[in-house]
Amino acid sequence: MSVVHATDHPTAAAPEAVPAADLRAAAFVHRHVGVAEDDRAAMLRTLGLDDVEQLLQRAVPQRIRLREPLALPAPMSEHQAQTALAELAGRNRPCTAMIGLGYHGTLTPAVIRRNVLEDPAWYTAYTPYQPEISQGRLEALLNFQTVVSDLTGLPIAGASLLDESTAVAEAMALCRRTVKKGAVFLLDADTLPQTVAVVRTRARALGIDVVVAEGDLVTALQTHEAFGVLVQTPGASGALRPVEELAAVADKAHENGAMVVAACDLLALTITADVASWGADIAVGSSQRLGVPLFYGGPHAGFMAVREGLQRSLPGRLVGVSVDADGTPAYRLALQTREQHIRREKATSNICTAQVLLAVAAGMYAVYHGPEGLRRIALGLHRSARRVAAALQAAGIVVRHTSFFDTLEVSVPHRGRAVVAAARQAGLHIRAIDADTVGVSIGEDATEHDLQNLCEAFGATLTDDVLGDLAGQRRTRDFLTHPVFNTHHSETQMLRYLRALSDRDFALDRGMIPLGSCTMKLNATTEMEPISLPGFADLHPFAPKEDAGGYHDLVATLEEWLAEITGYARVSIQPNAGSQGEFAGLLAIRAYHRSRGDDERVVCLIPSSAHGTNAASAAMAGMKVVVVGATPDGAVDMDDLHAKIEAHRDRLAAIMVTYPSTHGVFEETITDLCDAVHEAGGQVYVDGANLNALVGLAKPGEFGADVSHLNLHKTFCIPHGGGGPGVGPVAVGAHLAPFLPSHPMLDVGPATGVGPISGAPYGSAGILPISWAYIAMMGADGLRRATEQAVLSANYVARRLGEHYPVLYTGRDGFVAHECILDLRALTKASGITVDDVAKRLIDYGFHAPTMSFPVAGTLMVEPTESEDLAELDRFCEAMISIRAEIARVESGEWGADNPLAQAPHTLARVTADEWDHPYSRTVAAYPAGRGSGPVAAGRGDKYWPAVARIDGAYGDRNLVCSCPPPEAFED
Amino acid sequence: MSVVHATDHPTAAAPEAVPAADLRAAAFVHRHVGVAEDDRAAMLRTLGLDDVEQLLQRAVPQRIRLREPLALPAPMSEHQAQTALAELAGRNRPCTAMIGLGYHGTLTPAVIRRNVLEDPAWYTAYTPYQPEISQGRLEALLNFQTVVSDLTGLPIAGASLLDESTAVAEAMALCRRTVKKGAVFLLDADTLPQTVAVVRTRARALGIDVVVAEGDLVTALQTHEAFGVLVQTPGASGALRPVEELAAVADKAHENGAMVVAACDLLALTITADVASWGADIAVGSSQRLGVPLFYGGPHAGFMAVREGLQRSLPGRLVGVSVDADGTPAYRLALQTREQHIRREKATSNICTAQVLLAVAAGMYAVYHGPEGLRRIALGLHRSARRVAAALQAAGIVVRHTSFFDTLEVSVPHRGRAVVAAARQAGLHIRAIDADTVGVSIGEDATEHDLQNLCEAFGATLTDDVLGDLAGQRRTRDFLTHPVFNTHHSETQMLRYLRALSDRDFALDRGMIPLGSCTMKLNATTEMEPISLPGFADLHPFAPKEDAGGYHDLVATLEEWLAEITGYARVSIQPNAGSQGEFAGLLAIRAYHRSRGDDERVVCLIPSSAHGTNAASAAMAGMKVVVVGATPDGAVDMDDLHAKIEAHRDRLAAIMVTYPSTHGVFEETITDLCDAVHEAGGQVYVDGANLNALVGLAKPGEFGADVSHLNLHKTFCIPHGGGGPGVGPVAVGAHLAPFLPSHPMLDVGPATGVGPISGAPYGSAGILPISWAYIAMMGADGLRRATEQAVLSANYVARRLGEHYPVLYTGRDGFVAHECILDLRALTKASGITVDDVAKRLIDYGFHAPTMSFPVAGTLMVEPTESEDLAELDRFCEAMISIRAEIARVESGEWGADNPLAQAPHTLARVTADEWDHPYSRTVAAYPAGRGSGPVAAGRGDKYWPAVARIDGAYGDRNLVCSCPPPEAFED
Repeated sequence: MSVVHATDHPTAAAPEAVPAADLRAAAFVHRHVGVAEDDRAAMLRTLGLDDVEQLLQRAVPQRIRLREPLALPAPMSEHQAQTALAELAGRNRPCTAMIGLGYHGTLTPAVIRRNVLEDPAWYTAYTPYQPEISQGRLEALLNFQTVVSDLTGLPIAGASLLDESTAVAEAMALCRRTVKKGAVFLLDADTLPQTVAVVRTRARALGIDVVVAEGDLVTALQTHEAFGVLVQTPGASGALRPVEELAAVADKAHENGAMVVAACDLLALTITADVASWGADIAVGSSQRLGVPLFYGGPHAGFMAVREGLQRSLPGRLVGVSVDADGTPAYRLALQTREQHIRREKATSNICTAQVLLAVAAGMYAVYHGPEGLRRIALGLHRSARRVAAALQAAGIVVRHTSFFDTLEVSVPHRGRAVVAAARQAGLHIRAIDADTVGVSIGEDATEHDLQNLCEAFGATLTDDVLGDLAGQRRTRDFLTHPVFNTHHSETQMLRYLRALSDRDFALDRGMIPLGSCTMKLNATTEMEPISLPGFADLHPFAPKEDAGGYHDLVATLEEWLAEITGYARVSIQPNAGSQGEFAGLLAIRAYHRSRGDDERVVCLIPSSAHGTNAASAAMAGMKVVVVGATPDGAVDMDDLHAKIEAHRDRLAAIMVTYPSTHGVFEETITDLCDAVHEAGGQVYVDGANLNALVGLAKPGEFGADVSHLNLHKTFCIPHGGGGPGVGPVAVGAHLAPFLPSHPMLDVGPATGVGPISGAPYGSAGILPISWAYIAMMGADGLRRATEQAVLSANYVARRLGEHYPVLYTGRDGFVAHECILDLRALTKASGITVDDVAKRLIDYGFHAPTMSFPVAGTLMVEPTESEDLAELDRFCEAMISIRAEIARVESGEWGADNPLAQAPHTLARVTADEWDHPYSRTVAAYPAGRGSGPVAAGRGDKYWPAVARIDGAYGDRNLVCSCPPPEAFED
Repeated sequence: MSVVHATDHPTAAAPEAVPAADLRAAAFVHRHVGVAEDDRAAMLRTLGLDDVEQLLQRAVPQRIRLREPLALPAPMSEHQAQTALAELAGRNRPCTAMIGLGYHGTLTPAVIRRNVLEDPAWYTAYTPYQPEISQGRLEALLNFQTVVSDLTGLPIAGASLLDESTAVAEAMALCRRTVKKGAVFLLDADTLPQTVAVVRTRARALGIDVVVAEGDLVTALQTHEAFGVLVQTPGASGALRPVEELAAVADKAHENGAMVVAACDLLALTITADVASWGADIAVGSSQRLGVPLFYGGPHAGFMAVREGLQRSLPGRLVGVSVDADGTPAYRLALQTREQHIRREKATSNICTAQVLLAVAAGMYAVYHGPEGLRRIALGLHRSARRVAAALQAAGIVVRHTSFFDTLEVSVPHRGRAVVAAARQAGLHIRAIDADTVGVSIGEDATEHDLQNLCEAFGATLTDDVLGDLAGQRRTRDFLTHPVFNTHHSETQMLRYLRALSDRDFALDRGMIPLGSCTMKLNATTEMEPISLPGFADLHPFAPKEDAGGYHDLVATLEEWLAEITGYARVSIQPNAGSQGEFAGLLAIRAYHRSRGDDERVVCLIPSSAHGTNAASAAMAGMKVVVVGATPDGAVDMDDLHAKIEAHRDRLAAIMVTYPSTHGVFEETITDLCDAVHEAGGQVYVDGANLNALVGLAKPGEFGADVSHLNLHKTFCIPHGGGGPGVGPVAVGAHLAPFLPSHPMLDVGPATGVGPISGAPYGSAGILPISWAYIAMMGADGLRRATEQAVLSANYVARRLGEHYPVLYTGRDGFVAHECILDLRALTKASGITVDDVAKRLIDYGFHAPTMSFPVAGTLMVEPTESEDLAELDRFCEAMISIRAEIARVESGEWGADNPLAQAPHTLARVTADEWDHPYSRTVAAYPAGRGSGPVAAGRGDKYWPAVARIDGAYGDRNLVCSCPPPEAFED
């Protein structure tokens, strides 16, 4: 434990010494950066350095270093940031959201808001790649999958996608991969407009022909050779078609060998026919209306479910059931070989981040309401819509469809604007379609009073009369029959369920998560609190711009700050994940080349050490991936680079390179690399995954890059949420600015833009206040100081562990950047102990494992981040050193196959069992660092325990189960 | 586990069946009441009843039952209540709070707000009477005590009192108990005005003469024979006196045999001399400004510290260090024999509830800032005050004192109102003293801009010049040198510390807390969220009434609803604990008698089964307690009652009786009892502790009582907060209404009132939205339904357990009220197993123990409340049945002295130890109900573990340590 003693008498300083202004402004950087002044000095001494400048001179190429501090406003105090964000939120004016189009008013149960969305045990968790200490959120995601699967009727549902529109685009890609015949992806005329635009953006890059059917889909299927068709039900207009009509579309498509995608509404599905019943192969949509705030468009969990046979083609993450070493059922991510981090450009998608936190919330909404509760809500909305329809008809107003769920399209000749304005006056946002037409959609937040006001805005009067129906689409299949959806219906039960699940998980509130490449830094409460403000949480993404002034201001400022930090001309925060930012950046490059007539520039060079996502994104952007090798010291092989440039000179579109590299080093050659690619007419894409090591020290936009995406959830403090949400802004030089994302529904991005990347104009707008607050409170000095500490902490860990595990790559003077790779391959060869064994053993020591086998198999990559304090860094180092000594006992033969590394992690069930038949003791098994060794000192231990023993992933993949298992499976 | 299967096809109900209005309004009662419809029917069947009405006919005297439903508004949905409370909060207008008088602007660190004040793991915890599962909050309270002790310089500090003014009153009582000579309690002329008034209210009842010194205290000590003297430093005016002057007062007082009480400011003490240094015997004050929101006056943690020798006279709770059965240091409440529940009218105070949650927050503020941080804040405020003073002087304005900490009294002849109005216009609340004088006090929330505006309101201009000093009171003693205050300074560290502590504790978020008399029901999130709204959290209690419209409306409504529910004419929510409500009620009775010339009516009859607080309150109100015996069946012995009435007829003031009785029974004789007392000229006080069993069924104000206090933290959902805050409104019949509490600073209560009971006009105003929301969302039907369920659940538990443990008392037809007493005395005699053993063994089964040995030694009192679901009730019953079987093994001799009951609770340290030498297995020790038996089913267990083994309380009392022990104490 590191104890800072009061170093001088507190009485020494005279009252005059502390100016009032200091008090507030100085504070936040010291809250964010975990290492105290004295400890920082001690760490430098360990490295044989006098000060941080010496470190930077050795670790960072001097020619890329900034000479001027970042031009950012003076840092705000936490109090000032809170006040400023409350003021911005106050300049948004959420109304009752009746615009529809995939975004609906909903009531987040307060118990879920407080104990999921606002609970660090949930939001600071990482992606559940260490399933033994992630059973809580894996169960929550399995609930989500069960909701989607039950309601759509399709057996396999994934653990969330980014939003509805990108889910449709992913479905299109799935159809494309599955069906070889046909060039057309056919869209329902009643498709959400933003979905049409997102699909077009994606299709263009892949050479797919998107056709929006003019009339009915059966006819369109006769005239177009489609490989897939999208049916939106209910449609954007609100119209519901009879099952027979939908079945006819499916039959026709299947007859043609095409696949059928249904974009659907989970709440509507509680009372209407499931999409499997009429033949859909794939179902997609958004789960937002299951209790997730509107957030001005996101983040929300999109979903996808597929029929049997398509599971191995599913994009994104999938939770499945397997067993642990003791035969206990245990959850983990299934079929990971589909994913980009393994299959690179052959992956099913470039998706990496999911929307875990929001999927958890949506799943819990279903758990809390249960099937009966959901039906009651759906029936209530439907009845309200029918009452409004009747009122309008009684006033002589034409409602376009008489079969609908909750949404009406209303004909108001020449009165469109006036009706929208009258509704707004009454606190309602309704949909302006055209001069003669408006749309209204009833959400869970609409009150009786709202309905009355709505009718009055049309000049009608609400009564109890009803009009309209469900097109005969009564649901006949049961859903959510599993006990988990029929148990936790009182708030006390729900609270305990949420606590019990989160207790099974390890998150930043319990200890360090030293994940290389993932930057698990502090997610400060002051950054997090504002996202719950109604002004940020409750605004519909297509609300009139004049009601969203706070958001527009916040986005403009944030984009400007990010441009300053990265050295680019323009930034778009629309991409709602890093992968989407990459895709947007690559699209900009292609569009740029095309604008210059360079249609053939499609080759994208990617170093062998790159994140798998890079290759997958390049493939999605229609580029051809060419791999550039690495030198033995891990750097880009410049000879190979030059050779590859030569080989593809005329077709060279770009290089994608991560900086500092995924090997955790500031490569000296970066500027040469940029020059060489530019000289050949290519563009340089610098992946911003490691921007944490650059902020305030160097700007990619100034040292030679043309485009980057950033990860606000890595560098800029958006929490990982257990695997999402993320935000992946794309930043570009001036020449690429005309090709940034745009959007059909709102004036964002350039007129010449590549179209929308995300369904919502500002992507995951609702969590942008987090990064805004972080930058505002850190200021230029604070940001630089955080980067310096991140680099210092990584080098400290590398130095302390280097004598026990070789540090695979270092830079010029033997220093790493912000992370370090520990090479275990020789140890594994000598002892049989694998990185997996070490990772699981770290659980026994009270840690989350570092990144395993990326970017080099057989290694562990450690990123301490600036937020961890020295005591925690030391605790980690000591654990690793102790593990090294354990490995030595295996190497020496003292321990055989039954050793604590191979058996790790040790569960409570094992260590408290009556029988103990291992050759090592219970104490060695469970308390290898002593009994008083938790992350919080004072001798209490506070050890966390894995919920299950080591999981057999292959078993689960062979026996795929992706919805909630019956309770009997868990019996003693 | 209780699984509700969807009982009919979800397709059965037509869309028409569910009216929109139902959707929202129906919801909350089903969230609050934990038992589902089907389960309720099953429980009734177990009792052999057809419906709840049959139960009520058997359990409740028919002549007291209501004939009409409560006249309350229709229930709101959760959404509606949120909206309504946000609207009320919006009608309060917090300004930067510069009024001072013991309430200061402060910045609650967001990490503490979210992870303490808004975290159910902290706020749903109970008083730490089961210390083995309360080590987290006990440590947090020890931190608080250390803060108070270090800063005041006095060695023993308690775990919080109700507020500063009542703390002064308690100090006066302590002086009175200690010093036998003298009749006067002398108050500093610069005492807070509300403190003067509260002290007068208390003193009047005890016959103490309170004198406010006109000039200096040394002179006053010469003219008055005082047993104690209060020095307020800094004074209400802001003035600081030199240490020599304070020492002269103390010397003079001690010379006279009087004791010295210092009312002081913890933040000022970080830079000024500690009060022990100049001779104070007792220090009191408020810890509000250590990060606790203003809350319009409360709840805040008052404090008291005393010199060596006074610890056994300290009022309120005291946390101390002891050891557990394994010799590990362990915390628990110390010297409990001082308290009212043991010593009754001889107790040091009637205080029962403390302000644990707020004390935890204040202690954590000190942990987070550390000594250096606190000093920086204090110096910053001081410097700001000095700048303002200089600016005022430069503008020719007279500042009354030149020695001050953060508060100035300013002379503005004829301009007082104008300056206050100008400041208010600029968003500042300053103190209006009189037409010619105002006060300004600088809080942590004041910005540079605020200071400028403040000066402008006076017509002055802020510069960097300073004026004024600390009266030479530089602090010379170190403080907060313990590592806990020098470690957790980054937010990551703080977050983990808070999580680690809360993980050691059992609260409602983990399982049932079946505490008889304490009503541990759901504290719904929708009730809790609004207290964080700035409109409720950030308002100063002496803000102008026009800026507090929302609070005034909320209080008026709540008082009206409570009057309707209880059947009384008027309610005052001012008392900030049940004990204070009792005191207020008894004062009203005495004042009533006096108003009729019945000065001699001072006898208060109290049944032998009463809460200890009753007797202590009666003593505090200057009454003479006469005990009335009980019949063998636990009822009030009506013969003895009549005898006692006869014996004291002319002096009879009142009877205090709990209804339903503390024996958990609706006594049939209640109306006779009321009649008999009334006939003799006495008043009937019905203690509202068990109102949970009456709401909607009967009204004390209608069945014969004249006055009650309620416990909003029992019946009306304010969480227990780990031992406070509470709210204890007093409710009275019309004849007593003129004698309700009033307040000198705000027009509350009758002009003829008894004076203030609490420092703030509305007591713990900040948490009243909780009870408001509960009543608003439940409505008349919901409240009655909750009561019915509470009675049903208690009878269900009594029936299931009755064959294993005798249920000590039942009513007429064998039914209990809302709780039941299990008699273990025969078992203890036969087996040696005590209630303590059973209580600790319940920890191994995953429960919090019921109330032990109250009201009858050797028994357990179980109150399930309406919020627990049937599965949890069954889990509890099965645990108790299993424990009975374990006791049988001891009785039979199968198990000797080393048995799992005597050894309980079993810690992880024990059960995972390498050695196990008990005659029962580890599994029997730790998983007596099987390994998959947590409160959340699905086979995962999720067992919680006690942090320490059974604690030796006596050891700690013999070796009293009441501040943080050194870390070495916890070494392996």
